[in-house]
Amino acid sequence: MTDLTRLDVTELATLIEGKKASPVEVVQAFQGRIKAVNDRLNAFVTETADAALTAARAAEAEIAAGGYKGPLHGIPIGHKDLYATAGVRTTGGSQVLADNIPEQDSTVVGQLAAAGMISLGKLNTHEFAYGPTNEHSMFGPSRNPWDTDRITGGSSGGSGAAVAAGLVPIATGSDTGGSIRMPAAACGVTGLKPTYGRASRAGIFPLCWTMDHPGPLSRSAYDAALFMTAIAGRDPRDAATADRPGMDYAAALTGSIKGLRIGLPRHYFYDRAQAPVCDVVEAALAELEKLGATLVDVELPHIDHAAAAAMAIYVAEATAYHDDTLDDRAHLYTEQVRTFLELGDQLLAKDYLHAQRYRTLLGREMAAVLADVDVLATPGIALTATPIGQENVTIRGAEDGVFGAILRNTEPFDLTGLPALVVPCGFADGLPVSLQIAGRAFDEAGVLNVGHAFQQATDWHRRYPQL
Amino acid sequence: MTDLTRLDVTELATLIEGKKASPVEVVQAFQGRIKAVNDRLNAFVTETADAALTAARAAEAEIAAGGYKGPLHGIPIGHKDLYATAGVRTTGGSQVLADNIPEQDSTVVGQLAAAGMISLGKLNTHEFAYGPTNEHSMFGPSRNPWDTDRITGGSSGGSGAAVAAGLVPIATGSDTGGSIRMPAAACGVTGLKPTYGRASRAGIFPLCWTMDHPGPLSRSAYDAALFMTAIAGRDPRDAATADRPGMDYAAALTGSIKGLRIGLPRHYFYDRAQAPVCDVVEAALAELEKLGATLVDVELPHIDHAAAAAMAIYVAEATAYHDDTLDDRAHLYTEQVRTFLELGDQLLAKDYLHAQRYRTLLGREMAAVLADVDVLATPGIALTATPIGQENVTIRGAEDGVFGAILRNTEPFDLTGLPALVVPCGFADGLPVSLQIAGRAFDEAGVLNVGHAFQQATDWHRRYPQL
Repeated sequence: MTDLTRLDVTELATLIEGKKASPVEVVQAFQGRIKAVNDRLNAFVTETADAALTAARAAEAEIAAGGYKGPLHGIPIGHKDLYATAGVRTTGGSQVLADNIPEQDSTVVGQLAAAGMISLGKLNTHEFAYGPTNEHSMFGPSRNPWDTDRITGGSSGGSGAAVAAGLVPIATGSDTGGSIRMPAAACGVTGLKPTYGRASRAGIFPLCWTMDHPGPLSRSAYDAALFMTAIAGRDPRDAATADRPGMDYAAALTGSIKGLRIGLPRHYFYDRAQAPVCDVVEAALAELEKLGATLVDVELPHIDHAAAAAMAIYVAEATAYHDDTLDDRAHLYTEQVRTFLELGDQLLAKDYLHAQRYRTLLGREMAAVLADVDVLATPGIALTATPIGQENVTIRGAEDGVFGAILRNTEPFDLTGLPALVVPCGFADGLPVSLQIAGRAFDEAGVLNVGHAFQQATDWHRRYPQL
Repeated sequence: MTDLTRLDVTELATLIEGKKASPVEVVQAFQGRIKAVNDRLNAFVTETADAALTAARAAEAEIAAGGYKGPLHGIPIGHKDLYATAGVRTTGGSQVLADNIPEQDSTVVGQLAAAGMISLGKLNTHEFAYGPTNEHSMFGPSRNPWDTDRITGGSSGGSGAAVAAGLVPIATGSDTGGSIRMPAAACGVTGLKPTYGRASRAGIFPLCWTMDHPGPLSRSAYDAALFMTAIAGRDPRDAATADRPGMDYAAALTGSIKGLRIGLPRHYFYDRAQAPVCDVVEAALAELEKLGATLVDVELPHIDHAAAAAMAIYVAEATAYHDDTLDDRAHLYTEQVRTFLELGDQLLAKDYLHAQRYRTLLGREMAAVLADVDVLATPGIALTATPIGQENVTIRGAEDGVFGAILRNTEPFDLTGLPALVVPCGFADGLPVSLQIAGRAFDEAGVLNVGHAFQQATDWHRRYPQL
């Protein structure tokens, strides 16, 4: 008998639409998997088992009555605990929100439910989505399914672990410096940060509102396209959403990248990445060439200042947001996050503005490069998952904080808001390595198509950890 | 014989198109007027007399050869000295730029030249466009033509004085807290601050880039519409310009306001304005009612914080912009502007961000009110022009700085970016009083049409000072 938890959204949808599997069976299979391995991963922090079964029965009945809504109908999902879920505790990983039970779903949670998805519960996140390595969630760290002593990457670490280990076929995440792509890369799944403003953040606790993006962690780029089709568009509840319609992203995936021009910004993205990671990425690039793409070296002259600019913007906006709470309830924050917010308390306006102006410059440089090439390709993250608690890492002879090293390749695309996808592309020392594809503003279809072409030709996204 | 300097753009255009007056005669008439009265006003700080005559002769020849370009062809204009003019000294009123000769025109200067306008030179501005009352232009203060011991309002004070006294029929200005509308109001001419992003600021020295707006000071709302038709639209050189086409604003002016709903935000805009100013404005409102409009009291619950938020944003952005120059050449700034920039040096990022968040709130409140009414009407500025050097003013028993009192009614619309027009509507103690009409985003046509209707029914915009 098929292990339903080894199927992706598209495969499950085929079974459900064909009435070969009912949403109830599907939900129960994933719930069984959660029961079996979640203790070792600490991915789910709140399960909504009864509500999920009730919803699965309702979906089963709807579909039996001819009311099939489409490829997300009856499909289980887990939501990052930063996403408000009506009636279900939503902590953002912080004691500050330990008792927070929202009255209203975040827009994306509502959109996915309207498309027929069934939430199995809430997924672990670093406190208020801060940092790639901060393990101080009020629930303790989520653990990497490929080596449970290692980090998942953050902050959507519960989502990365859950999808990698087959606890859900797809999960929500949010990405401010890389918080969808870092855990996707570290856990060996697919993660998409769409263009800034492509989908709504309403009801997702903000980290830094000029850089926050919602998006999926999934098995495949194709599944991410199905997810994006459900959430892309203007939302009056999020003033930053673009006033342009979404589209059927899955229908746009031709799987052909013949003639595509792929830019390789080797400085910064490759020259400070671990050598074994680069070797795996080079093999993936060779595969893309074999599929008909042309590789072109490109340069982003001012990219080296990305980390400093991003940090100024994170701390300023996060501090402005937490200002009142920090006055009242400083003791409820973990020391790491409190220190981060207190740092923001000192930041000068002119430094924040210099960072924002740098951001404009970097956006222009990326747009200029992307006038000549269709997408950029880089290592997803520059290193494989480090042991939980390790603070520093030596890469190519230079010691750096894990914090900065892991953010390095993802945060430039949060600064510029461009869509960026990571797909698993191999292993180094038994740990996942990923390829990042970034594209032009609102060209989610373009970046997803590169991932889809790669995933049709390879099976790295089909690997499951032994647990 | 007609005094050409008493004609507005539309009237001059009729003569020029009909070959009843040549651009050379027109230019010479205004140059004569400049010669006669500029010494008393200090409005023009740089004259480009020869270049203007050359351009006038070229326009004359073009028109004689059947190449009439439209209603701005052959019309004289003066440019605020904040606008870059190729080959012509552009100081921003500051010793810091005393020797600055740009290589390229600002976008708006180029657009107006392309429409056939002839620049007579550069107009006085407060140093770097800072403040409504700062008279420390490197050229000394411009003087109000209605009483040369009084301020013009700022910072486009040279433009206000020049149009009021007939030195040019129209001039460029820029508005960050009211710098088009304050001098228009104080000098008794028409001034339009268009929607944020409606026209390009490229080549205009920035004061505060999230609040800077270019626009015209003119005799009539109709002339402002002709100006806007030439400059509205996207400019790749100004990333903040909206990606939506301009329109023929003059063609949209029906002159009818029957059935129009006009909101009166009496709190804040009226209750801290001088009683004689309010009396004149009430008479203007009665005129609008007579023309078929309905007056409706409205409220903006959080409007009282506008000045604090605007000040935080001015000082933060101005300081970020001047950061390097201030390090090198602090002694070249006037004390008032240096103090302002040093204040910005201390401002915290979180306070800047609180101000920006307030701005979002105020924008929502205004949008909600403007869902019910078509436009808002207020006194243009809350007081008549004060004597040069006077720092404080008592209004309705409360003493206030002239600085804050004069900015009070204009800066809320810089914060929210909504289009706002002032039109002269009478006199108090021999000094001009004005009515402000603010509207929905990108509804320049709507606000101009109210001004046009008012100006068709009255002749306040036809008054000239004795000089």
